[in-house]
Amino acid sequence: MRQLVIAAHGSRRESSNDELRALVALVSDELDMGFDGVEVAFLELASPSVESVLGELFKGETSEVVVLPYFLSAGNHVVKDIPEEINKALSLWPDKKITVLPHIGAFEAMASVIAQACQH
Amino acid sequence: MRQLVIAAHGSRRESSNDELRALVALVSDELDMGFDGVEVAFLELASPSVESVLGELFKGETSEVVVLPYFLSAGNHVVKDIPEEINKALSLWPDKKITVLPHIGAFEAMASVIAQACQH
Repeated sequence: MRQLVIAAHGSRRESSNDELRALVALVSDELDMGFDGVEVAFLELASPSVESVLGELFKGETSEVVVLPYFLSAGNHVVKDIPEEINKALSLWPDKKITVLPHIGAFEAMASVIAQACQH
Repeated sequence: MRQLVIAAHGSRRESSNDELRALVALVSDELDMGFDGVEVAFLELASPSVESVLGELFKGETSEVVVLPYFLSAGNHVVKDIPEEINKALSLWPDKKITVLPHIGAFEAMASVIAQACQH
């Protein structure tokens, strides 16, 4: 099984974490791209952690995870922290596969969201 | 004249600020929604600041600014810092108009970017 994991920063404001969970539920509804499911994982300040989400998935029937860093820019979390989490998971689960996508802010489709936001 | 100002956090990595500037250039090309232009402004760590961008615009022919907070979640920067910057500008330029949009992460169109990212 192949799972999508959206790796976000996490916030002290639980309403902010819930906002992302609600968005991911929308994604889940239209996820017809060869994924069996989608999970949210947080780097800091919120649960579940990236480590625990990957652990739970790999303990189950998941053989492959695609990680989408949910960050607008390529700061330390994207460049350093997420790769570290992934290397840690791969050392524990060497027979599993993890692919990392570019961070969400790198996609040109963001320009359309900005344009749509301005018509708000 | 009516201007769009995209208010982002700002990064120590200038490549990250440049990434946003490049994205905004794309937005600029398709900006046919009643805006005369689009500017990027940063809250921290990068230039130009929100204060200086609003000042330059209002010193010129701009009568109205629409601010889009370029943040994925409604943390302190969205809830507190951006409104403070706007109140400061309005006290200096009481005859000007500033409208603030929801932060970019609040738009459901983000779900489509996530879906597109997964087809990467």
